[in-house]
Amino acid sequence: MSSAGREERPVIVALDAHGADLGFAEVIAGANRALAAGIALRIFGPESEIRPLLRDAEGLAEIVDAPVAVSNHDDPATAVRSKRDASIVLAAKSVAHGETDALVSAGPTGATLAASLLNMKRIRGVKRPAIAALVPNGRGGSTVLLDAGANIDVPADYLVQFAVLGAEFARWVLGQERPKVGILSIGEESGKGTERVVEAGRLLSEGSHRFEFVGNVEGRDIPTDLVDVVVTDGFTGNVALKTLEGAAKGVMIAIRDAIKSSRLATLGGLLARRQLMRLRTEIDPNTTGGAPLLGVRGVAIVAHGSSTAEGIAAALMLAARSVEGGLVAHMTEAIDELRAAADEPQPVSETVVSVGDTDDA
Amino acid sequence: MSSAGREERPVIVALDAHGADLGFAEVIAGANRALAAGIALRIFGPESEIRPLLRDAEGLAEIVDAPVAVSNHDDPATAVRSKRDASIVLAAKSVAHGETDALVSAGPTGATLAASLLNMKRIRGVKRPAIAALVPNGRGGSTVLLDAGANIDVPADYLVQFAVLGAEFARWVLGQERPKVGILSIGEESGKGTERVVEAGRLLSEGSHRFEFVGNVEGRDIPTDLVDVVVTDGFTGNVALKTLEGAAKGVMIAIRDAIKSSRLATLGGLLARRQLMRLRTEIDPNTTGGAPLLGVRGVAIVAHGSSTAEGIAAALMLAARSVEGGLVAHMTEAIDELRAAADEPQPVSETVVSVGDTDDA
Repeated sequence: MSSAGREERPVIVALDAHGADLGFAEVIAGANRALAAGIALRIFGPESEIRPLLRDAEGLAEIVDAPVAVSNHDDPATAVRSKRDASIVLAAKSVAHGETDALVSAGPTGATLAASLLNMKRIRGVKRPAIAALVPNGRGGSTVLLDAGANIDVPADYLVQFAVLGAEFARWVLGQERPKVGILSIGEESGKGTERVVEAGRLLSEGSHRFEFVGNVEGRDIPTDLVDVVVTDGFTGNVALKTLEGAAKGVMIAIRDAIKSSRLATLGGLLARRQLMRLRTEIDPNTTGGAPLLGVRGVAIVAHGSSTAEGIAAALMLAARSVEGGLVAHMTEAIDELRAAADEPQPVSETVVSVGDTDDA
Repeated sequence: MSSAGREERPVIVALDAHGADLGFAEVIAGANRALAAGIALRIFGPESEIRPLLRDAEGLAEIVDAPVAVSNHDDPATAVRSKRDASIVLAAKSVAHGETDALVSAGPTGATLAASLLNMKRIRGVKRPAIAALVPNGRGGSTVLLDAGANIDVPADYLVQFAVLGAEFARWVLGQERPKVGILSIGEESGKGTERVVEAGRLLSEGSHRFEFVGNVEGRDIPTDLVDVVVTDGFTGNVALKTLEGAAKGVMIAIRDAIKSSRLATLGGLLARRQLMRLRTEIDPNTTGGAPLLGVRGVAIVAHGSSTAEGIAAALMLAARSVEGGLVAHMTEAIDELRAAADEPQPVSETVVSVGDTDDA
């Protein structure tokens, strides 16, 4: 149980120190920021490398020596079963055993998914956990986009569950009292889209929910505050998310080139620099920190592989906020309600990735 | 035959004046720019409204009085059959009859698609025509993204045809000698993606082509010059395209806000303004003008509904360039080659939208 012991001690976040593109120094620099902000950490990685980098004036950090890593070259499902002493496995287990409350890793996404599923298991009734990306909405907040890549083949009833999970996250972690939820399609009219999208829209329109279902939304609505949650399958969601990243990167390069391109513009650029830096911060994926994996019995945050110290710190804070918001308990309740409303029998055994997690409903 | 008479007279572009968000004044202002650049036009719309707006010093324009429009409220397939005197229908027929060489419309996309299909018919062997969006690639060129929304349900062999059609466009209209083509997926490895994407990737890897197939590309690669053509189904393509539009719009608003947000920044912003305007032009969909419908026997350009005069002019010039490049003949040849390579039987009758175009293979 991920929430075991929550009442007796402050929140502890389990940090997998392996796998970040920028290496241990950057990950631990991020950890140091979180520690300075009062977040307690259990850090899983090679102690000899981590210890010298750690700044822990308050004594909030514990290092669990875990020199073994799951790499991008490993098959995630196989690796998290065979490398039982890998940092991501030990970190996920610590959440599952209630020794820590949340998992953060900037290592391979597949490994984080597989380790979380295998060890934390799914929330009862959840068919497939989903990765929820947090997309800057241009108003200082975020749009929750899910699934951002965990599930390619997504029937309508999974999409309905994603809506429920995403809405609970928007409510209890992002503070949206009654989140607005849309389903991603290629036109606003309810008849537009794939069969699955149309069917999911119908199902979502019918029931009463803890959120406001607004119907179809389009790609252009993702980076705006039109809705708080955008629901889609993992293929489309991943393409949309990476398209946004590409656009943001392209624009930042273009702004830099524009600023550099003449002496007049350089002067102007220098003066406008502070404002443009703020814009860059807004676009930068490091600002949101990471993508929560929703639907497992514990908080798990997939940090960007290219996370800077700022990104790691943001992911750790997002993890702590998710625990403090009681996210997992609220998701469990909401999924129970959904199943009661649908008068469903117990869900059958299914897995996101072939890690063979047993059905726990 | 769209290319009938091409040898005997200069290129004439058929312009549907109806349906643009900004009205006749903007469409005809765009027409005037194209006329000034020496492009001959046949304009289909209400003569009484168009005539006073037209500036045609060289006598390159002809107006065909067509006061009837297909609106956004009409079902496109029904409307282009029942409103036989609608401007889009008359314009498409003029291309089909060889009186003009290319169609441009900023009216409803569905109507342009349906009218083109019904009247021009498909190129022999083409299973489904696709809309090819031109996405600025950050290097002054464009990435051809297709299908951008004509077909939701797209098996692997359609994706292969889209690759062939997009590559011919990139070669003969955009001037890419040997276009690089990628298939949109959620990871670079060839095993990643939906079954259809993996199968299409396999088919494209096998044959020899007039283009270089580079394998899977991701959403972030679309607004870059990594490849010249990105192939996907119409659902994913439309989501990706609209996501890009949303991001571009959001960034332009953010830049404007950043520039305005303090006196210091305003000074800086004014000085940097010229460079930022260039950036805006690069992002603006009006720059590319419109999206060609590839796979019909004639050039058809779907201009953005919100096209400015600049956008209309760009679409008209793109149409003229497509005719001059011999696009339709080249696509026909390439599809013939593909079919010969696959040793396929004649294709069965299929339609993009239910306009009941007869199979013409």
